[in-house]
Amino acid sequence: MPDPIITLTTDFGAAAPYAAAMKGVILALNPAARPVDLTHQVPPQDVRHAAFFLASAVPCFPPEAIHVVVVDPGVGSDRALLYVEAGGRRLLAPDNGCWTLLEGADAARVIRLAEPRFWRQPVSATFHGRDILAPVAAHLSLGTDPAQLGPGVEQWVRLTWPEPVARDDGLTGEVVFIDDYGNLITNIPGTAWADRPARVTVGGRPVERRVRSYAEALPGTAVVLVSSVGLTEIAVPHGSAARQLGAAVGTPVVLTWRDGA
Amino acid sequence: MPDPIITLTTDFGAAAPYAAAMKGVILALNPAARPVDLTHQVPPQDVRHAAFFLASAVPCFPPEAIHVVVVDPGVGSDRALLYVEAGGRRLLAPDNGCWTLLEGADAARVIRLAEPRFWRQPVSATFHGRDILAPVAAHLSLGTDPAQLGPGVEQWVRLTWPEPVARDDGLTGEVVFIDDYGNLITNIPGTAWADRPARVTVGGRPVERRVRSYAEALPGTAVVLVSSVGLTEIAVPHGSAARQLGAAVGTPVVLTWRDGA
Amino acid sequence: MPDPIITLTTDFGAAAPYAAAMKGVILALNPAARPVDLTHQVPPQDVRHAAFFLASAVPCFPPEAIHVVVVDPGVGSDRALLYVEAGGRRLLAPDNGCWTLLEGADAARVIRLAEPRFWRQPVSATFHGRDILAPVAAHLSLGTDPAQLGPGVEQWVRLTWPEPVARDDGLTGEVVFIDDYGNLITNIPGTAWADRPARVTVGGRPVERRVRSYAEALPGTAVVLVSSVGLTEIAVPHGSAARQLGAAVGTPVVLTWRDGA
Repeated sequence: MPDPIITLTTDFGAAAPYAAAMKGVILALNPAARPVDLTHQVPPQDVRHAAFFLASAVPCFPPEAIHVVVVDPGVGSDRALLYVEAGGRRLLAPDNGCWTLLEGADAARVIRLAEPRFWRQPVSATFHGRDILAPVAAHLSLGTDPAQLGPGVEQWVRLTWPEPVARDDGLTGEVVFIDDYGNLITNIPGTAWADRPARVTVGGRPVERRVRSYAEALPGTAVVLVSSVGLTEIAVPHGSAARQLGAAVGTPVVLTWRDGA
Repeated sequence: MPDPIITLTTDFGAAAPYAAAMKGVILALNPAARPVDLTHQVPPQDVRHAAFFLASAVPCFPPEAIHVVVVDPGVGSDRALLYVEAGGRRLLAPDNGCWTLLEGADAARVIRLAEPRFWRQPVSATFHGRDILAPVAAHLSLGTDPAQLGPGVEQWVRLTWPEPVARDDGLTGEVVFIDDYGNLITNIPGTAWADRPARVTVGGRPVERRVRSYAEALPGTAVVLVSSVGLTEIAVPHGSAARQLGAAVGTPVVLTWRDGA
Repeated sequence: MPDPIITLTTDFGAAAPYAAAMKGVILALNPAARPVDLTHQVPPQDVRHAAFFLASAVPCFPPEAIHVVVVDPGVGSDRALLYVEAGGRRLLAPDNGCWTLLEGADAARVIRLAEPRFWRQPVSATFHGRDILAPVAAHLSLGTDPAQLGPGVEQWVRLTWPEPVARDDGLTGEVVFIDDYGNLITNIPGTAWADRPARVTVGGRPVERRVRSYAEALPGTAVVLVSSVGLTEIAVPHGSAARQLGAAVGTPVVLTWRDGA
């Protein structure tokens, strides 16, 4: 059996000691564990960013990995902390919907963490990542049965995720994620326009043409393509679509069929 | 025995090859070692930031971990490089006080690295992290006795750390660390005002109220609470206290008892 | 045998899920593999930055490490993806010259990846790092013979790298890399002026004096020294030479012999 993998996805940033503290807690309880950084640069408290991130990355991992998520605006409130099994994946996360874009989320097995004997003592009011989630992840990696962590629950927060709206002459969606290149990922499945020519605007600004890959576009030109997770993406190769088009998460993206149907 | 952990805390930044080079040197000497990034984003040459970071993160790790610190404004000068055992922790660091906030620092065992046979040759004048600290860490992880690294020393640089000053009507401290959220960590222990109501100002600006956790505050409101390492912290949930209050490291933080005592 | 090391060098940035996805793919195919982050902060599409980074870091690693590079402006075009053995190092990278500064590059063994059975299916048009390079790295780490990956090739893209130009009265080079401190690394070997006094200008601005290490310089003063990889470097200790001298990659650096020869 390879040593257990525990991934970390947080909004801690790069210069603060919080991610380091969590790795320490994990390794102190299970020196054989392998902490793997996914990111510590989720924008502060941005649960939607975390949700999209997890939906893109978690399915690539082996099912035995344990994914710890600390994007937690509600730390110290009565929001629950959860152990989740969804679509064969295992996560530990605050109950804020950050994992509910994962396949299998609707049929998830969810346990509310309620057993302080698996926690670090004393539990601070501001850092449950270090004091609860990290030690619970370590205990799971040592073989603790999830049923011991607390009671099963049937209710949890689901992320509100915008769905694209069909119109007679097209489809209206929006930007849901912006990557570090400035590429705009939208909520419109790439399959929606696979066989049908469409004009595309982002925040009212036209996107020049449809391509299969960045390399087909003239540098500096906004193009539309299918992203690596199958969603409609607007990119400016060798530039930033976000900057060039003045777009942000939530900016409307409008497809209009060219055949006028 | 699990494979040895060697952590890295540096001010190298994210785009330069220096951290990568150190990981390579470690793995070339001990392929079983596990390099663990703590941060490479200590502000350049900011020994105080590194000291606070280490004091927050190192105690979470198992004692057998080796912590390598490269925040080294004096590289190439005659400043010493040290092997340190303090409070059961093991560090390799320049002699600039970066480790002296750790518990047990006063009673530390300290060795000056003086045995070039454990170093990478030739030793550059500008990158002792790669040429001295990384190979020494690898040798330690392979079982080298620290006594072989050089002579014990009784003198070392201690970090100058501001202590809060008691007044008749309160306590005056200052901001000592700012995290990536913009939370202001001060040098005032949370216990100082645990049972006593106080007004708090940061750089002369009032902080609205005391809370137990971020979630109790109205978003955008400056509040005071006890940080996850037990110090007084000023935060603006869903915002940045540093920006909103115009505060920096060194900005005065004044507690005034409400009972007028 | 220690578990196999697979390093990652990309321009993905810190907040996007792409590096995490690659680590997941690697670990799903070979749970014993050890992904090691070198950087994900190569400036977007900056092949020269990647090339300098790799030449500085890769030689520090043990030869058995597999280095995966995803700085890939040509993704989705007909540019090849390569397996490379150069100077005893093993890399997987797009055919854009990013590895050709490594020692031994001229005599490299190069294979074009052409066997989809080692790839993730379906292969996207925009993320060959996840769909081709990561799974091929994992297969290599499991013992796949490189000869199985595709045909050997004799032609590949070589990086255009500026060489310094000798003048009667000195040497003219340029800035080739800027690190996170703002230090300017040039293409002029440190040996070029080791025994000969020279005046140095960067973009026409004089650099005050030559030092052996940063610590010999007055803080805030621009100095010239030999970098940790043996190249001429201009630094402003406790400051940024890039900012202070207004320099960028490509800015001319002129050495003029003081002895007037």
